[in-house]
Amino acid sequence: MSSLFKSLRVHQIFGANTDVGKTILTTALVRASAQTGKPVYYLKPVSTGPLTDADDHHITRFTAKASSKIHSECLFRYNEPVSPHLAVTLEEGLVPSNETLVNAIANRIRTHAQKTTSTSHMYIETAGGVHSPTLSGTTQADCYRPLFLPTVLIGDSKLGGISTTISSYESLLLRGYIIDAVLLFRDDYYKNEEYLKAYFDERGTFLATIEKPPPRAQSVEEDRKAIEDYYSTLTTGGKEGILDVVNYLDKCHSQRIEELESMPKRAYSNIWWPFVQHGLIKGPDDVTVIDSAHSDFFSVTNKSALKQHTSKDSILNPEFDGSASWWTQALGHGHPSLTLAAARASGRYGHVMFPQAVHMPALQLAERLIHKGPGKGWATRAFFSDNGSTGMEVAIKMALRAFSLRQGDSLKKTDRKQLGILGLKGSYHGDTIGAMDACEEGVYTCEWHNAKGYWFDPPSIGIKDGEVSITVPASLATFSQSQNVKAKSLSWVYDVEDRLETPLAKAYAMYITKTLKALEAAGGPPLAALVIEPIVMGAGGMIFVDPLFQRVLVDTVRGRRSGKSKQWSGLPVIFDEVFVGLYRLGMESSGPLLGVYPDISVNAKILTGGLLPLCITLASESIFDAFMSDKKAEALLHGHSYTAHPIGCEVANKTLELIDKLAISDEWIAAKSSWANPDDSCSTVWSLWSPGFVDALSKLPKVKEVMALGSVLAVKIHDDAAGYTSQSAQQTLQDLRRCTLDDSDVSAAPAGAPYSVHFRTLGDVAYFMTSLNTGSPVIRSIEDRIWTILAQV
Amino acid sequence: MSSLFKSLRVHQIFGANTDVGKTILTTALVRASAQTGKPVYYLKPVSTGPLTDADDHHITRFTAKASSKIHSECLFRYNEPVSPHLAVTLEEGLVPSNETLVNAIANRIRTHAQKTTSTSHMYIETAGGVHSPTLSGTTQADCYRPLFLPTVLIGDSKLGGISTTISSYESLLLRGYIIDAVLLFRDDYYKNEEYLKAYFDERGTFLATIEKPPPRAQSVEEDRKAIEDYYSTLTTGGKEGILDVVNYLDKCHSQRIEELESMPKRAYSNIWWPFVQHGLIKGPDDVTVIDSAHSDFFSVTNKSALKQHTSKDSILNPEFDGSASWWTQALGHGHPSLTLAAARASGRYGHVMFPQAVHMPALQLAERLIHKGPGKGWATRAFFSDNGSTGMEVAIKMALRAFSLRQGDSLKKTDRKQLGILGLKGSYHGDTIGAMDACEEGVYTCEWHNAKGYWFDPPSIGIKDGEVSITVPASLATFSQSQNVKAKSLSWVYDVEDRLETPLAKAYAMYITKTLKALEAAGGPPLAALVIEPIVMGAGGMIFVDPLFQRVLVDTVRGRRSGKSKQWSGLPVIFDEVFVGLYRLGMESSGPLLGVYPDISVNAKILTGGLLPLCITLASESIFDAFMSDKKAEALLHGHSYTAHPIGCEVANKTLELIDKLAISDEWIAAKSSWANPDDSCSTVWSLWSPGFVDALSKLPKVKEVMALGSVLAVKIHDDAAGYTSQSAQQTLQDLRRCTLDDSDVSAAPAGAPYSVHFRTLGDVAYFMTSLNTGSPVIRSIEDRIWTILAQV
Repeated sequence: MSSLFKSLRVHQIFGANTDVGKTILTTALVRASAQTGKPVYYLKPVSTGPLTDADDHHITRFTAKASSKIHSECLFRYNEPVSPHLAVTLEEGLVPSNETLVNAIANRIRTHAQKTTSTSHMYIETAGGVHSPTLSGTTQADCYRPLFLPTVLIGDSKLGGISTTISSYESLLLRGYIIDAVLLFRDDYYKNEEYLKAYFDERGTFLATIEKPPPRAQSVEEDRKAIEDYYSTLTTGGKEGILDVVNYLDKCHSQRIEELESMPKRAYSNIWWPFVQHGLIKGPDDVTVIDSAHSDFFSVTNKSALKQHTSKDSILNPEFDGSASWWTQALGHGHPSLTLAAARASGRYGHVMFPQAVHMPALQLAERLIHKGPGKGWATRAFFSDNGSTGMEVAIKMALRAFSLRQGDSLKKTDRKQLGILGLKGSYHGDTIGAMDACEEGVYTCEWHNAKGYWFDPPSIGIKDGEVSITVPASLATFSQSQNVKAKSLSWVYDVEDRLETPLAKAYAMYITKTLKALEAAGGPPLAALVIEPIVMGAGGMIFVDPLFQRVLVDTVRGRRSGKSKQWSGLPVIFDEVFVGLYRLGMESSGPLLGVYPDISVNAKILTGGLLPLCITLASESIFDAFMSDKKAEALLHGHSYTAHPIGCEVANKTLELIDKLAISDEWIAAKSSWANPDDSCSTVWSLWSPGFVDALSKLPKVKEVMALGSVLAVKIHDDAAGYTSQSAQQTLQDLRRCTLDDSDVSAAPAGAPYSVHFRTLGDVAYFMTSLNTGSPVIRSIEDRIWTILAQV
Repeated sequence: MSSLFKSLRVHQIFGANTDVGKTILTTALVRASAQTGKPVYYLKPVSTGPLTDADDHHITRFTAKASSKIHSECLFRYNEPVSPHLAVTLEEGLVPSNETLVNAIANRIRTHAQKTTSTSHMYIETAGGVHSPTLSGTTQADCYRPLFLPTVLIGDSKLGGISTTISSYESLLLRGYIIDAVLLFRDDYYKNEEYLKAYFDERGTFLATIEKPPPRAQSVEEDRKAIEDYYSTLTTGGKEGILDVVNYLDKCHSQRIEELESMPKRAYSNIWWPFVQHGLIKGPDDVTVIDSAHSDFFSVTNKSALKQHTSKDSILNPEFDGSASWWTQALGHGHPSLTLAAARASGRYGHVMFPQAVHMPALQLAERLIHKGPGKGWATRAFFSDNGSTGMEVAIKMALRAFSLRQGDSLKKTDRKQLGILGLKGSYHGDTIGAMDACEEGVYTCEWHNAKGYWFDPPSIGIKDGEVSITVPASLATFSQSQNVKAKSLSWVYDVEDRLETPLAKAYAMYITKTLKALEAAGGPPLAALVIEPIVMGAGGMIFVDPLFQRVLVDTVRGRRSGKSKQWSGLPVIFDEVFVGLYRLGMESSGPLLGVYPDISVNAKILTGGLLPLCITLASESIFDAFMSDKKAEALLHGHSYTAHPIGCEVANKTLELIDKLAISDEWIAAKSSWANPDDSCSTVWSLWSPGFVDALSKLPKVKEVMALGSVLAVKIHDDAAGYTSQSAQQTLQDLRRCTLDDSDVSAAPAGAPYSVHFRTLGDVAYFMTSLNTGSPVIRSIEDRIWTILAQV
């Protein structure tokens, strides 16, 4: 809920420690601002200790005479002079939550911004040091992060103050804060200002030193006068004083706005976006500027507020990241634990050589995935690469070699180059040529794309009018004798084991066997691997494939190998779990659900919690063996410069640790139980989206079909011209994107501000996705919004 | 120079601030350790203030009675009670450098470890807070980082102490430090220990709270007695005392050693390494364990020290990262500025959606590369991907489309899939299938590899017997009338403009023209792009191609287009600068040297300073235009989940900023002037390796040829069986890897310890590479070593 107003320049004041002169320097800033003739707002969110000692009291006392335009306020006040998290427990009443605190500040900012007629200044003074806990116990640097306010850091001029100043600065940077200025008192003995001036100069951060206040005078009256004189001198004094700081902060404010204003045009003329037809972009106004992001929300610019010189609207507005930033987010943006994991690995290793070497982050990740994660029970080897596409190229190379080796000389050399992939129509495995060649012809327009293999039309799952049904493609309907099979329930559909003996399973088997025989009879290069995205084909249009079909397909291809054989049989089986893996669909991996395990699998996206690229291809020992020899040239000659980069591995380890905790959290247990079906013995599927909402949505006239699993909600819109290039769902849902709800509606979501929703479409499907830790209040709020729009149509 | 001894458990004590009880708690630790009967070493590297107040004095006073096995020492002592960086300037004498300080500590650790007969303990007490400056002015956390000692952080129990403790902890983590324990005093009023206990529990960090010392007694004697009693009680007291901490630190020490011991076997059985023939690995002993890395050195385990129960050798030894970790390192490992850049972007954005959106780190990077960097003058668009291979796939897709569009219907649909690449033999562009298909058949053993195009045998540059010569391949010799052309000097060879009118240039042009005509006459799918690695073909064997040949090739293919045309002509020209770009060879990009600019170029590796994967493909507007239409399907349908991830972009921006500073540094100016050739008007080439060394090396009998540019040194060894699979250079140079020099030799290099050199070979070429900021003392040391070994052969 970061906000930014032309008319109000806001700074949050953090201290390097308690007792570093935060209140005095803030008072000086307030007075200096008032002296420029502007209205000034001082806000103390939380104050502890007696009123007479309170910071806002000091401000009031020493600014009352200075200007009538100074407005001072404290939001939460406690008597005991201890840390707020202790003070609050010593008094009666509820402990205000972080949301309450942050909302209250956000509201004050908005109120002041809209009230003011000319540009005004606001200073928000925190308590203690940057990491002093606030009321809920969260440290201030973390609690206030959603506001993303530009900050001023008050440095420490005492002995040891160089260290506390630099460490505080680093703690703020770790959370992405913009630090406009560092202020500190001059001290002729310790001279911290000399050291810190050079230190921050080198880092491009503005530092100003201010004269110290006078020593405490003998009487209260003398003391007040001395301090009043001190402030007067500061704000009227020499050229290197507090007035310069105020001017500098003004400059930062306008530069930030100018920068935001300039970004769309600069991006429009320098960036070549992925998957974007630039010919369809009308101009810079079509560019979304993301200023920062926190949890599930981007902070994006409001173009009309930017353009109108006198706008009272915030230039920054929250936007729900409804595609989980291309399906990567697991724990939300700006998660401090992931940042620290990245920083720790960067500090310890940077990046280090990987061939025949090992470092702990990579080893730990490999072991976690093989022994406790998606590789459990079948995989023995982890191969690292950079993204899903490279990981799939590695997987395909592994399968092709294993297959070729088993064929031996019976495989013609020319055929090797044309070995085929068996897969499903709608598959997507990435955009490098090898990954593309494993998918059928169609969408791809790259000249070199040369589809190799055969792809079945798969049956798919959807909820229509409150009922779960399996849509069987025409080619298969002759075996199943129906194109539309009703299912008892969603959980029954995913109880693959139970369905193995149904007529539909037999129809699938007959269809697959017959097709494979026909392919063999037709000749040509053999099929060398079965490659599937289990459960859902994402980029192909969020197609929820009937898991029974995938199970029967694997069984058939393997010749119904039973149990966990150590040798692959039939064809090597690759599971592309880049999108579906690691709880995106509510389960860590799809093997247990399908009841079969791959010989090779690929994980990426969520793997690094949504922070940076990393991919792991897991393989069984019988696949690995195919590359063992005494000839270097027969090794898997594949690698990338940053193979197994420690930052990615460490972030992945931290992500998996945090997801493991989520998996047993109350929130997930509640969501799971809401989806539990008392009629079924087995309930493996569930969603963060609520069952009632999904059911109701499926009954709307405009909705053709809906599906929800894990954090994914897919809504198929009635559309005559379906397909990848269709724009109809997008058009139908345009309103959703434009609509912003009023304040009353969003108490649960990004505090106190209306928000927009960023979502993506694939042909006639609109899909919505959350992080794995998105709170249910946010999800309920998004549900309301989707419902409101779609019910109107 | 991180070291680790079985016989000596060392901890470095950092404080969250000054005056948090660091000395008292360290004294308690020393006494508790002594009580276990082990010898204890206390080291105060730097002390300021009068001797009577000194920490080591306190230790001596309060441990003398406790045990005769306690040894206390201070390395640098100054009288004034101010920060060391100030104290040192107040007295006479030189300011000890970071190396001197760190070496002195490393030597003490080694001495103690080798002296002790049983396991002993060592505590090294820092001064002030974690970021208090040490003698040179560098903050302690940074200065001591090369030692990479396990740390104990003394927390702050005062008001504000929660914040200073957490911030100090984060500053240590940012540098990768292992924090074994946090200690702090109990304080019944502020209760920081309650908060911090929960905080560090959640983060898996051990925290112990210790009773506070008694308040200052009235007389000195009483005071001493009270403190002595305090220590006595602590070390004999209850179960949650300082003895538990000592036991816990012992456990950390043994666990760390056990972990290092277990890693080779665990890695050997779980990891599938890139480009490694596992069949040639003899066993876990062949695995290099990298415990940490700093600047140009890995810290790797010494297997024999690990295995011998009673070894006096360090388990960790420095190893020079002589391949710059697969050519990625620009600024050395664990560079704090890069870590902070990564952390800042992670905190501000995490990763955010990129299509049609923009964030400042990506925009800034795109603009830097287009307007000031390798794209200057020709590129208008930046396309982001994850690594060199994906970036080259993007480049190839761009070129193929641009070419196809210009051919229109005259290009058969079947030919589109087989469009050829024109290149050089020895090219390498990455391991995804598209990048592979742009290279000739040969090494690659992947079934799907299908080389598309034609590759010239290129003439190459080398220094033999002190003379620069151009080796012309047989196929070209009929035109040049010689297979070996002597050159005036190295700088002359790279003065391409001056050589354009030489007979050799004409021979090149005739050869190229004739070959292209013959190819055209032979029919088949047309060639659609020229793809070269300018100056050097890295993975192909560090082949320094005659730049004149590449210039003439580009000119010929373009039909000698003059100047900077806005439209590509002939064929789109792709420069793969993944390895050669961004000053790896001493120049930011190769266009100015060759005198021609590409239509598409690719940068990666150094781009992110050697930290994490990111790649940028730059393109001219006429290439970009080929994808502009009103049809989504005609866009460049390529993208990766983490496209333009803010962390990568921010780290890249910081890297480029730091390299820009390096480019005008004294070190580089000196290196450049050492290579300047007074006989030549033009001196564009230079190296961090010294010209005298390169010259001398080229005259050794065993050396066939040598070349040095920028940070790269390539040494071709006389070998009958050259080629990619040859092991001969590797065998010749085995000794180099094993040899460690004695202490006297390495004052310049990783302080105070012998070190090994990690280097790589490509067939008969051994190559050595430094970061761009490797100091010349380190390079001179490596040169001595290479010389010593190769001269012996």
